[in-house]
Order: sequence, then structure tokens, then C-alpha cells
Amino acid sequence: MIYSFTNDYSEGCHPNILRRLTETNLSQQPGYGNDEATLESVAAIRALCRNPDIDVHLVAGGTLANLIVLSAFMKSYESVVAAETGHINNHEAGAIEATGHKIETVPTPDGKLTPALIQPLLNKFPEFHTVKPRMVYISNSTEIGTIYTKQELTDLSVFCRQNNLLLFMDGARLAMALSAPSNDLTMADIAHLTDVFYLGATKCGGLIGEAIVLANPALQKDFKYYIKQRGALMAKGRLFGAQFAELLRDDLLFKLGKHANELAQQMAARFQELGYAFLTPAQTNQIFPILPDTLIAELNKKYGFFVWRKTGEGMSAVRLITSWATPQTEVDLFLKEVEQLSRN
Amino acid sequence: MIYSFTNDYSEGCHPNILRRLTETNLSQQPGYGNDEATLESVAAIRALCRNPDIDVHLVAGGTLANLIVLSAFMKSYESVVAAETGHINNHEAGAIEATGHKIETVPTPDGKLTPALIQPLLNKFPEFHTVKPRMVYISNSTEIGTIYTKQELTDLSVFCRQNNLLLFMDGARLAMALSAPSNDLTMADIAHLTDVFYLGATKCGGLIGEAIVLANPALQKDFKYYIKQRGALMAKGRLFGAQFAELLRDDLLFKLGKHANELAQQMAARFQELGYAFLTPAQTNQIFPILPDTLIAELNKKYGFFVWRKTGEGMSAVRLITSWATPQTEVDLFLKEVEQLSRN
Amino acid sequence: MIYSFTNDYSEGCHPNILRRLTETNLSQQPGYGNDEATLESVAAIRALCRNPDIDVHLVAGGTLANLIVLSAFMKSYESVVAAETGHINNHEAGAIEATGHKIETVPTPDGKLTPALIQPLLNKFPEFHTVKPRMVYISNSTEIGTIYTKQELTDLSVFCRQNNLLLFMDGARLAMALSAPSNDLTMADIAHLTDVFYLGATKCGGLIGEAIVLANPALQKDFKYYIKQRGALMAKGRLFGAQFAELLRDDLLFKLGKHANELAQQMAARFQELGYAFLTPAQTNQIFPILPDTLIAELNKKYGFFVWRKTGEGMSAVRLITSWATPQTEVDLFLKEVEQLSRN
Amino acid sequence: MIYSFTNDYSEGCHPNILRRLTETNLSQQPGYGNDEATLESVAAIRALCRNPDIDVHLVAGGTLANLIVLSAFMKSYESVVAAETGHINNHEAGAIEATGHKIETVPTPDGKLTPALIQPLLNKFPEFHTVKPRMVYISNSTEIGTIYTKQELTDLSVFCRQNNLLLFMDGARLAMALSAPSNDLTMADIAHLTDVFYLGATKCGGLIGEAIVLANPALQKDFKYYIKQRGALMAKGRLFGAQFAELLRDDLLFKLGKHANELAQQMAARFQELGYAFLTPAQTNQIFPILPDTLIAELNKKYGFFVWRKTGEGMSAVRLITSWATPQTEVDLFLKEVEQLSRN
Repeated sequence: MIYSFTNDYSEGCHPNILRRLTETNLSQQPGYGNDEATLESVAAIRALCRNPDIDVHLVAGGTLANLIVLSAFMKSYESVVAAETGHINNHEAGAIEATGHKIETVPTPDGKLTPALIQPLLNKFPEFHTVKPRMVYISNSTEIGTIYTKQELTDLSVFCRQNNLLLFMDGARLAMALSAPSNDLTMADIAHLTDVFYLGATKCGGLIGEAIVLANPALQKDFKYYIKQRGALMAKGRLFGAQFAELLRDDLLFKLGKHANELAQQMAARFQELGYAFLTPAQTNQIFPILPDTLIAELNKKYGFFVWRKTGEGMSAVRLITSWATPQTEVDLFLKEVEQLSRN
Repeated sequence: MIYSFTNDYSEGCHPNILRRLTETNLSQQPGYGNDEATLESVAAIRALCRNPDIDVHLVAGGTLANLIVLSAFMKSYESVVAAETGHINNHEAGAIEATGHKIETVPTPDGKLTPALIQPLLNKFPEFHTVKPRMVYISNSTEIGTIYTKQELTDLSVFCRQNNLLLFMDGARLAMALSAPSNDLTMADIAHLTDVFYLGATKCGGLIGEAIVLANPALQKDFKYYIKQRGALMAKGRLFGAQFAELLRDDLLFKLGKHANELAQQMAARFQELGYAFLTPAQTNQIFPILPDTLIAELNKKYGFFVWRKTGEGMSAVRLITSWATPQTEVDLFLKEVEQLSRN
Repeated sequence: MIYSFTNDYSEGCHPNILRRLTETNLSQQPGYGNDEATLESVAAIRALCRNPDIDVHLVAGGTLANLIVLSAFMKSYESVVAAETGHINNHEAGAIEATGHKIETVPTPDGKLTPALIQPLLNKFPEFHTVKPRMVYISNSTEIGTIYTKQELTDLSVFCRQNNLLLFMDGARLAMALSAPSNDLTMADIAHLTDVFYLGATKCGGLIGEAIVLANPALQKDFKYYIKQRGALMAKGRLFGAQFAELLRDDLLFKLGKHANELAQQMAARFQELGYAFLTPAQTNQIFPILPDTLIAELNKKYGFFVWRKTGEGMSAVRLITSWATPQTEVDLFLKEVEQLSRN
Repeated sequence: MIYSFTNDYSEGCHPNILRRLTETNLSQQPGYGNDEATLESVAAIRALCRNPDIDVHLVAGGTLANLIVLSAFMKSYESVVAAETGHINNHEAGAIEATGHKIETVPTPDGKLTPALIQPLLNKFPEFHTVKPRMVYISNSTEIGTIYTKQELTDLSVFCRQNNLLLFMDGARLAMALSAPSNDLTMADIAHLTDVFYLGATKCGGLIGEAIVLANPALQKDFKYYIKQRGALMAKGRLFGAQFAELLRDDLLFKLGKHANELAQQMAARFQELGYAFLTPAQTNQIFPILPDTLIAELNKKYGFFVWRKTGEGMSAVRLITSWATPQTEVDLFLKEVEQLSRN
């Protein structure tokens, strides 16, 4: 294989992080998230959110963040509403249900939820015999590469507050969402419009770590108990601290997200020029062009990527992902290959 | 504060690990534990255990390892037996119960379980109204610094197999246990005598990571589902792989454990010479001398450590911990201080 | 209100049950299901199933039976497949998820599952990241009044055994299913084709009680622990025993089911004569005619029933249920009313 | 066997209940606790508690009541404190842990909790690493026959309110407690001093049923969801309603409790006259005389009872239980037997 466009976690991390770990390696630091790097990360995220009262907790991964947050804030009979494509619904091996909660899903072509999609779940009858929606789970960018506009997120936020629902954003790829060309949201907007969200490092230049932001003050009390109970409170929290302290210095995280997006946009533009359609709008670093199966087979001999699903006779959507570490040259070579194969 | 003897996770990691991470940083690697460093780690552990058929899975921390293992192998009405001092009983915020299982505890002065201590829990009456013990949880070294001999572990193992109990060893500090002066166990013994155990990196030279070893082949099937479901399957498994690949090269892990033990033994020897008693035998890198509260107060002005509990009028046991990174000079200075204060 | 066709649990129980309870009231009986009436019930069910090796356990209600059975036989990462209309999916307030398991649903117009509907759920990718189907939940009669034929159940059974799936039948209304005109299944067939099912008393002449039948011997061991742990092991099991001992004497249960079915069929025939369509085939004691909203409004002034859902402009499906205790005269009066209102 | 003193649930129920069930058998009643008998029961309990604002919910049994109540009011990291002898700790097959919560137990010779016994559990260190006590579970009468005085319950109540703990009383045998000679508590006191308790019918003249009383208004919202989710919301709630409607008419429940107590007290008095000691004070219908093993062996040939535990060389405590249905004549014959055997 020449190069893999299978995912955005194939490489290690931005060198600044390894430098930081090396330089601070032998200083004695308190455990469990009280180290200097973690405190620096928390301060940086508060500044980005323009809100000194938010709470920030660093945990290892996205599934862990999702299960901790969702189980912490729901009573046993309460459910979380998600898009059918939501990561919690498809790719977490039942992690949310294992904490005792139902995920209520709605189909949505672009992976995004809207008030109109959620409303029917609030009208269930009869009381007591059904679960009661309490949280709304969205991903930004979504599992299929799309992003929320400020208007869309505002509408959801207003709807949730009117209906006693907590809005939770999975931000495993928030860096890419916020650095996408069409984005008009800021971290401060997100802290204002959601109750809780997280900002991911793993998929954008970090080795490990998601920063859970408790924006709603009512959710902050005793949260560390949940982290400990789910096995997510790390003795050497400095490891997580180093990721965010470095990635949030000089907007590095968002610069890396922009790099990933730009390479994917180059790919998308070329596929469009070649006349190919897309399964979903190509907005971030995950794109889903619909290609002839013959072309896919040829490309797959040299490049790693995921065949998403059949879309029609002899055609399938593929998922191509670029990362903070993808070199321009690999994209150039790949697109040259596509072009040649498409001409034949 | 001059220096902290509070725990063995105040420093970063052995430099070899950072070097490895740096050197391999940009190579594209498969995610979720299929990277080269993880494969190398698994091979090294199989070799140490002299058993090519064991399964090895790397997870972030001890509480995570405990809750994944215990919930994976028990039916909902089955319980785990532990010493009252067991980490799962006291310091995991109810992590095991949160997975639905009762911990049945027995008091034991040295933190170790024996067949005689477990037997009464097997005689419960009446059937169906009580939980049914299925797993036995032990720690080596224990939470209070003691270790199991080969004879003790063999006795437990025989007892467990006779009584349809699975034996599980928490090895967060197994490196120290196996490099203790009085130890006569090997990794191969442990893989032979237990059903499942883990070998910790976090407390002995790693940044993060515990290696779960499924020694009993009946436990191996589908285990990765449990890891994923509990949020413990990391996209960049290479981070965990690098820890064990380096720590298991040339027995580095055990050399680091030996270093930690030796410094603690030096302390213990000096306290003994000064006439102080101990709460538990000083066998590894955690020692529990019983000191006058006045001495403790003075020492605490300059050194970090944990006051464990009152043991009598004006006397308390303290916990002093040394690590792979503790310098000889700090121990020397500390002991000089102890000596001077004791003479006054 | 003149009369309610809202459900089949509005009345008490067949008088034989009260007579039995009265006659045996002061005899001292062992608790927890070891009383004479329970033993008699178990023997009767074994005889009906033509299988002396099945295990039978009596519990209070359907949701309790469902949650005990499903949680007993699935590992935490395993899921149960159900029709979207399944009771466990819609009307149990998340009871199954509260035990830690995902329900994977498939849409189906008649409330019945087929191998073709289940197959796609077995092809999920990638391994470890998704739940793994282990049980198949069906209801007979279904939540929308339909029943399984012997061929349909056989096909499902073969498919499940080929795919390592356990087949579980919710028989809250099994009495009606087995006494329906078009039925060709026996209790013995069901015990042969499923792994576990239950036979309901509550909705067919009993005050309380569902008899869980463990047909697959591999499921029998230690099952009483699950019953106890879920709070379902009753001190005075004689109460449940009396229900089944009497209902299974001289096929009383099935005679009562037949009575309920016949009255519903009379209704269905009349609605058909009047030119109304049905949401689902009218096979048992639950029928779903599609009526003008104006007619529904008039009928609702005198009769209790449930408006199921809008089906088009000015038309809705209603659910009419008859029971073992519904008198012929009430059905006659109701149909006269329908006829008169339809003519206007 | 001549007669069983093994428990207080060997017989059926008071005839008034069967009469009520028979008389109302064919009236159509709403399901799920909205029937006339349940409404009558709720009104009767509100009157007994002298509080129209309490909520009352009827469920089948004690373990079900315990697991519903405890899981409803605790966050996942919160624990319930109980006496080591508590029913939830020993005889519910891990039902509470199966809902995800740790039971923290304290040894107590008489089965009763006091502030002094609970206080140490509130001082745990360090935060986040341990569970946090939130509920206190007591039984009245206790599992070993003793009862709380008004002063003792008041002290506990004050302590709990000062420490943000919810006080929960298991009243499976509350009828006996409140009709015991030394009792000075009323239902109104209990509704005032606890946050939630239940009043049992099963062990005092009913066939089935425990009435959960939510005295603390903050606990009342949405409680029915928990009942439904745990499988405890019965279609024919009229069955439970009939128990309490009849047992609470003219204080029948407490008269039956008094009868059971009086017969046990007769036994206790005679054992005392014969010089035997008791394991615990004989205050209600469960007594624990300490008898010679030879006498026990002889008595066991004719009478059913439970040998509780060895108390010394050749001596054991036995548990003798009388019920609302125990005839005076059986007690007389038993005591005659005891006397004769003791003389030999």
C-alpha cells in the first residue's frame, strides 16, 4: 500500500507534544488531573470559550467521554436522542446501553438533528410505559463529514431548552468542524449553546485525549466521581494535559484541522471536476465521493480507504479521510492516479 | 516541599518510551491495537509467560482493567471475593458495583487472601437468595505493600480450581512484586496459576497502560468487545504499545521495579534501626512505618507522604512510596532528616 | 361509559382461581415456588409441551419476564433483535436497556420477524465496534394482533439455530394465539422451536402471572438466581401457582382465549361487511379497523377503546380488544351502535 | 411435620381479601394502579400517615420495593448504608448491586443502625476515589426481630437530614413492629421521620404486596417510570389494591400483627422461664432462643424452624416465627413439647 486515507488516527502526534512530555518528564506532578499541564489546558479552554466558569475534564477517548457524560446526566428511564448515523448508536458496541439507557434514533440524510426530527419523540403515549427523552446527542463534524451552522445549532439549543432537554455535542472532530470553510461557529458559541460538549485531540494531532467541557453549571458538581467510576481518571493526567496544553497554544489544533480539511477539499474538488457525485456535502476532512466499483477496485490496490456502501448499479460511496499529518504530495499522487484511472 | 514520597506516579516515564514514540511518530499504523508496537508488546509478554497461547490486551489504567475483567466474566448474580483492603473495594468509586456486581470482602491483616478466608463465603445458605462467588481478586504487590509467595499463590490457585472460582491478579505493581527480595514467583508462574492478571506500566516507568493477560483460554473469545464497550479501545493503540515494547526490552520494567524497591528497603532498614515498628512487612516500594505524630508533623513540612492511620496514642502509620525515578540522593537526605529529628 | 374494549385486563379472574385460593387458603405451604399449586402448574405445562425436561418459573408480569429472560442469557455486548412494534421496544420504559442491552429493531408491517429481516443485522462491520445479536424476540400473538404460522416459526427457528441466536417468544397473549382460527401451532411445537418462551395468565383469565418456559436445557442452570435478583421470587408463590393450576385444568386457558377471539372476530366481520379496512389482519382478540374520525368520536362517547393512529384524511385505525370476560351482549350492543352510526 | 414456625408466609391471606376479590371480580377497572381498590388503599395510608401529600405505590414484593427505591434515588457513585444483617445485603442475590450501587455495611449486634455507626462512612478520604453515602437503609422490625423506638428513629432522622442522607425504612414486617408491646412509633411518625418507607402485606395477612410510601415530596416526581422499568407495574393493580384496602379497614393489619407477636411472646416467655437465653431481644414475631442442639434435634422432628447459627459448645440459636394465621393451639402443643423435652 502506498498510503492510507482510511482514518485520521494513523499517525502519532504533533512534535510539540512529544517535546513537552520530554522536557517536563522528571518534574514531580500531582496525579489525577492536578498537574500543571492539565491546569494550563483548562485555562486555555476557558479562554477559548470566553467563560471562566466552565469545568473541563480530560479523558482518554470518545466512547469513554460519551458513556461518562450520558450516564451521568440521565435518570434510568431517560433516553438520549441521536441521529441513526450517530457514533453512539453504531460504533460503540452498546456502550451507552451498557450504562442502562436507551438511544432513540431518527433517520437523517446528512447526519444532523433538527427540532422537527426530535419533536415526535416528545409526544409519546402513554406516560410511564415509554422512556422519556432527556438528552440530545449531536456530532460536529458529523460521522459523515457535515457540520452545523450557527443558526442550526441555535435552533436546536432553543428547542432543547424549551423542552427540558440537555444538548450534548460529540466533538471528536470539532477541530475540523471549526476550521471548515463554511463554519460560522466558535468555541464560545458552542459553550453558550450546548450544555456539555467535548473537544477531541486524538483525531487532530494528539496521541490521546478528549476534553469534556461542562458548560451548564448545574452539571458540574461531583462530575469527577463519574470519571473515576468509569475507570477514566488517570494517575498520570500530565499525559493528557500535555496534549491540550500544546495543541491549544497559538491555535495549533485549529491550524492542524484546517490542513486536514484543505487536503480533503482538494480531493473533493477534483472528484467534482471529474463528474462524480457525493453521498454527503464535502465540508471537512471526511469526504464520500460516489465512484464506479471498477475505479474503487483499482484505487484500493494502492491506497487504503473504506468502501462505505453501494449506492446503485456498479457504484459505491467511499470514505476518504485526510489528517493533520497527511502530506500534500500523497494527495497529489493519489489525485493523479484517480485522474488517470478515470480517463481510461 | 523538598520531595514527594506520596506515590509512584509523580514522574513521567522512562526516556526510552519517549524516544520510541518520537522515532515512530509519523509512520502510519493501524488503529485499535493492531500497530507494530502493540504486537511487539504482546510477543514480549507471551515470551515472559512462556506461553504463546495467552491473549494480551493493553488498556489505559487499573480501574478500567478491573471493571472490564470482572464484569466480563461474571453472571449478574455472581460476586467477586476481595480483601477488605482491595483497591476495587475502597478506591474505585464503586466501579465494580456500577457494572452490577457485589464485592464480598474479608478482613485480612496483610492484605492477602487465603483459601481459609474465602471458604466461609462458599457455604452461604439459602441458595438463590444470596450472591454466588465466582471470582477471587488479589493484588500483587498488595495495596499495603506485601507480596504473595509461590506457595501461597499455588494454594489459592488449587483452591479456586477446586471450587469453580476464577483467580484474578491486579498487577498494577507487579513489577515491584516480582523484583522484591523475597519474591519467588515468575510471570510464567502467574500465567499458570491465575486465570487472568494484568501487568502495570503506569506505576513503574510508563506514562499509561496496563497489560491484561488472559491466561485461561476459555476467557479469550470476544474479549475485545468488552474493551470497546467500556470505552477502553484506543484509536492510537501505538501509545500503549510503545510503553510495553520498551519496558519489556531487556527486562527494563523489572530493573525499574528493583530500583524502587531498593530505595524503600533502605528507608525501612533505617526506620527499623531507629526502633520503629511497621504496620505491614516492608517487602516492596510501599512501606508503612509507625512513627510519633510529632515526627510526622516535622517531616511533613518538607516531604510529601500520606498519613495512613492512627495506630495508638500519639503514633500513626505513614505510607512512604519510592518509584523507578526516585533519586538515591533524595532518599539519603530524607533519612538524614529522619535521623536528626528522631534524636531530638 | 357503557363498556370498555380498551384492553383484556379490565376484569378480575376466572372464578375457579378464587375458589382454589379460598379452599387452600390456610394450608401451610413452602414459599418461593415450592408449593403444591406451583408444582401442579409445572407438571401441567410439561405435559402440554410434551417434554418432561423443560423448566418452568412463574413470575408476576410480562415486563418482568422479558427483562429477566433477556438479561439472563446475553453477554453485555450482545443485543436482542425485535420488531419495531415489539413490546420491549415501546412499552417497557427502557426495561431491557436498563439491564444493559441494546435492542436492535427492524420495521415490519405485520409485527412479525422473518429471517430476511434479521439477516442484515448479522453482517455488521467492523467487529468489536458494534453490538452482536444474540437473541431474537418475537410476540405471539403480536402487539398488533397477528399470529405466527408453524412454517413461519420453523423458518425462524432454523435460522436462529444456524446463526447462534436464541429464539424467545413473548406469550403474554399466547392463549389467544393458540386458539385463533388460523393457528396451526401447539405448545409442544413452541417448546420445540424456541429456546425460551412464556405463557401469560394475566391477559387471559388470571389475576397475575406469566409462566416462563426454559425449553433449551442449556439455559436452565441457576435461573432462579436471576428471578430472585430482579425481585420476582415471591414468598407466596402459591398465588401464581393457583392461576396456572386452574387455568391449565381441562384447557380452560385456551377456552377463554377462544371466547375472546370469537367476539373480536364477530366485530371484525361486521366492520368488514360495513366496508371498513383494517390496519393488520384480524386474527385474534385485538383488531384494528380503520374508521372515519366522526364515527370514532361518536363511539367514544359510549365505549372505551384506543385510537391507534391516523391513517389518512379523516380516518384513523382504532384498537378494539375483547377478553375472556367480555359478554356477548356487550358486543351485540356495540355492533348495533356501529351499524346505526355508519348508516347515518 | 406437625407444624411449621419457619416463616410468616406459609399461609394464604385473611379471608376478607378473598371476599373482596370475589365480590368485585367482574367489574371493569382501569389498569396499572388506577382501580378503585388501589385508590382506597392510597387514601387509607394517607389517613394513617396523617398526611394527604404523600405518594403511595403498590408493588409485589420486598426485594422489588428495595431495588426500585434504592436505584431511583441514588446517583451511580452514591452508596446505601445498611446493617450487616440487612436484607438487601444478605438475601436479595445482589439485587441492589445489580442496579449499580454499592451497599456499605456496618456490624451491629441488634440489627439496628445509629448515627454513631454511620458517621465513620461519611469521613472517607480521598474524595472521588470512594463511593459517597446517600441513603440509609433500615428495617423495622429488623431481620432479627428487634424494633426501633421513637427516640432512636428521631436521632437517625435528624442525623440523616444534617448529612444530606435519605432515610429509607424496609417495612416488610412493619405491621408487627407497630403492634409490638414496646413500640412507641406510629405510621405518622414514620412518614414524618423517614423519606421513604414501605408497609408490607405479604408477611401479615396479605397474599402479595408492599405499599411504598414516598413521604419526601422531592422524591415523588416520575416515580411510576421506575416501577414500570423494573417490571413492577401490574396490569391488574386491583389485586394489590384489594390487599391493602381490606387490611387497612378497621386496623385489621395491625390486629393481625398483634396476634403474631403475642404468640411469639408466649413462646419467648416460656423459653425464658425454662432458663434459655436469646440471641436478640424478643420483641416481635421472630424470636431467637438459644437452645441445646439435642433439644433442637428433637423439636425438629415435629416442627419446622430454622437453625440460625452455632452460639457455643452444643448450643445454637434457632429462629421461631409466628404469623397472623398461627393458631393458639399449635403454640400450646409446641410449648408443651419443649417443656417435656427440656425436663428430660
